[in-house]
Amino acid sequence: MAKLIALYKHPENKEAFDKHYFETHVPLTEKIPGLRKMEVTRIIGSPMGGKGKYYLMCEMYYDSLEALQSAMRTDEGKASGKDAMKFAGDLITLMIGEAADE
Amino acid sequence: MAKLIALYKHPENKEAFDKHYFETHVPLTEKIPGLRKMEVTRIIGSPMGGKGKYYLMCEMYYDSLEALQSAMRTDEGKASGKDAMKFAGDLITLMIGEAADE
Repeated sequence: MAKLIALYKHPENKEAFDKHYFETHVPLTEKIPGLRKMEVTRIIGSPMGGKGKYYLMCEMYYDSLEALQSAMRTDEGKASGKDAMKFAGDLITLMIGEAADE
Repeated sequence: MAKLIALYKHPENKEAFDKHYFETHVPLTEKIPGLRKMEVTRIIGSPMGGKGKYYLMCEMYYDSLEALQSAMRTDEGKASGKDAMKFAGDLITLMIGEAADE
């Protein structure tokens, strides 16, 4: 299992961010070929208190690293990436991860 | 669904980190009452290239925020937290998250 992890810092306008994220970005991302599962998590704080640096995390699961990399090169993958950069390019950190037990 | 997310920055000594993490920290964490699932992900890079800031992510799933918070107050939760702070206190970022569709 491999996943693309997107971590978003707190946006200035949370309402506008959520509207674009859930109404436009998620539907675009769901079209990516080979995407097996998508898990969106609202970060609500830290056990130490405080709101922390990040606002939202999205994990996009693929069968393998190769499948993930192929998916990012499809038209749908590029459209999702382009949209993320446009609406949240200054907020996003992207990471590629692989299950540790593989 | 709620989860505790631990993001670890790159350790200086990856071999010593992995040994402690997988042989001591994971078994301690698996004992925490109410823990439903644990997903450990090796961060292998960024789609933009480069190794990025983070080395490893661990997600610990609970039935609810309340269950997560109760779990952290148990002896097993405290032992896991204490161990993390001891071996990786300078590397770890902890976040509490909730599934966005709840």
